[in-house]
Amino acid sequence: MATPVPLLKDELDIVIPTIRNLDFLEQWRPYLSPYHLIIVQDGDPNKVIKVPEGYDYELYNRNDINRILGPKASCISFKDSACRCFGFMMSKKKYIFTIDDDCWVAKDPQGKDINAMEQHITNLLTPSTPLFFNTLYDPYRKGADFVRGYPFSMREGVPTAISHGLWLNVPDYDAPTQLVKPAERNTRFVDMVMTIPKGTLFPMCGMNLAFERTLIGPAMYFGLMGDGQPIGRYDDMWAGWCCKVICDHLGYGVKTGLPYIHHSKASNPFVNLKKEYKGIFWQEEIIPFFQQVQLSKESVTVEQCYIELSKLVREGLNGVDPYFTKLADAMVTWIEAWTEINSKRPN
Amino acid sequence: MATPVPLLKDELDIVIPTIRNLDFLEQWRPYLSPYHLIIVQDGDPNKVIKVPEGYDYELYNRNDINRILGPKASCISFKDSACRCFGFMMSKKKYIFTIDDDCWVAKDPQGKDINAMEQHITNLLTPSTPLFFNTLYDPYRKGADFVRGYPFSMREGVPTAISHGLWLNVPDYDAPTQLVKPAERNTRFVDMVMTIPKGTLFPMCGMNLAFERTLIGPAMYFGLMGDGQPIGRYDDMWAGWCCKVICDHLGYGVKTGLPYIHHSKASNPFVNLKKEYKGIFWQEEIIPFFQQVQLSKESVTVEQCYIELSKLVREGLNGVDPYFTKLADAMVTWIEAWTEINSKRPN
Repeated sequence: MATPVPLLKDELDIVIPTIRNLDFLEQWRPYLSPYHLIIVQDGDPNKVIKVPEGYDYELYNRNDINRILGPKASCISFKDSACRCFGFMMSKKKYIFTIDDDCWVAKDPQGKDINAMEQHITNLLTPSTPLFFNTLYDPYRKGADFVRGYPFSMREGVPTAISHGLWLNVPDYDAPTQLVKPAERNTRFVDMVMTIPKGTLFPMCGMNLAFERTLIGPAMYFGLMGDGQPIGRYDDMWAGWCCKVICDHLGYGVKTGLPYIHHSKASNPFVNLKKEYKGIFWQEEIIPFFQQVQLSKESVTVEQCYIELSKLVREGLNGVDPYFTKLADAMVTWIEAWTEINSKRPN
Repeated sequence: MATPVPLLKDELDIVIPTIRNLDFLEQWRPYLSPYHLIIVQDGDPNKVIKVPEGYDYELYNRNDINRILGPKASCISFKDSACRCFGFMMSKKKYIFTIDDDCWVAKDPQGKDINAMEQHITNLLTPSTPLFFNTLYDPYRKGADFVRGYPFSMREGVPTAISHGLWLNVPDYDAPTQLVKPAERNTRFVDMVMTIPKGTLFPMCGMNLAFERTLIGPAMYFGLMGDGQPIGRYDDMWAGWCCKVICDHLGYGVKTGLPYIHHSKASNPFVNLKKEYKGIFWQEEIIPFFQQVQLSKESVTVEQCYIELSKLVREGLNGVDPYFTKLADAMVTWIEAWTEINSKRPN
């Protein structure tokens, strides 16, 4: 990019779910301190979360969520990082960057710190190309373009709704893979951003994720996980399947690749297995379900798409487990709460 | 890879279309000299092509093609590198690597020569994953795996039919892009191989391409280009669209990314524009056509798929230009010639 990447200082919130102190923000200070933080406390509301000096933030614990949403608070997970989506709902900004509190600044192959925020902003501000594959990847990047054979009518691209960043060091593996490969570390820096093609699902990880809230926010619901629920660690996957289907329907793009963060520590694989094991079965039916979802032409807003999807989930997945009926209800509650919170505002 | 990559010495042919001396083979000697070459002379059959000493080869010029195929030689392009597919037909091997004679050995970021052949073989011998996207790319590569959320039932993958390699230095741009960006060079080494998802088309370049001939060979037809035809430089694109649709139908995978070759010299953009300009219009209709192609369950071999596709081309693209009726005829002739040549053999 010849022109500097805009900071979007007044247009972007950072959403962090946490149960601990936010020491990782010290390292991120040069990149993240210009932004407003929305911290969603994941667990005991009586615990005090310390935020490093100089950061501008608002913090919500479970008591706040219950107070603000009333009975609709039932759609927000408790004791699970899925609670982060409450922060998406409370934000008034155009863009969101959400990051886990065990993610540190990664280094590029030259040993230089990677400004993940700048790359996410670049990804979101340049179009996506979901309709045809470009073999030199992101055609809008400096030194790249559309290759021979790329239809000219498709070169304008479509608006980018989601920027999915990756992880060096500890990769985002499921419990069985963690158990089998406890020492595996991701050391390969792939210098690339690409659009995930239309019609293709992907496993969206919430660790290092940015999106345009005004384009896709209402679909960025992280489901029912954690306390009282039969499943965990599928919150971001759920959001990813729903968002991808809706982006495809509405003509928005999803990018993956750069930027990398440094993921410091693998979570406990035994705990993870307990959380995941139903999901390991269920995803075998959920993914074919999402692969065949067709939204109707009448659904032209994200909210309408999401309500239609909740009906399809209720019909299509209730045979998998009664949990999906509860989840379909929660999807509706989420949209009601989103609409209520967001309609109170002038914009 | 802990185990060394097999050379496949007796199972792989290298196909080279050329109008000049094959000096580039000197540089490739350590990697390509163990293999048998099939050289297809593109142009005046009276010209003598010099092959560097020590290479084992067979060479076909236009007179040979006419003699071997008789009237069916009409399906093989003349004065265009599309003639390379005659080499695919004549090969008796399981695998093909085809490379242009202006492609040199590329260097990796550490300055080490890249053994493109080894990477193509690795790509072809490991499965593809077209049904779901893996965010850490090729899951079979050392240090990588399937990420959290990847369905376990899909982790076996599918057989890989095509390995599409890329180009450092001169990128594969169309004439308009060449004209607008005459100095652009590709210097970004992206250390990655990925499967192109099912249902997604891509612009396949024939410059640096390997495939399993016994899986997809009959669809690797490079169309009617060059002498007497209204179009050029769409030979590999045509093959790519047809192959991708058939791979998707038959459950085979297509990989793109590594290996890189060094593409030495941009071809003349004015000459290219003349060859391409009808294709620039036509591809706007051809690509939507291929995006909606559905092959029937009755087509279970590549030959059957290709014959069915020829019918769909005849019906679906004859409105674009009468050329496509001629091309549909040539597709049938190609399959007849392929079957004839290949049925004469013991295997």
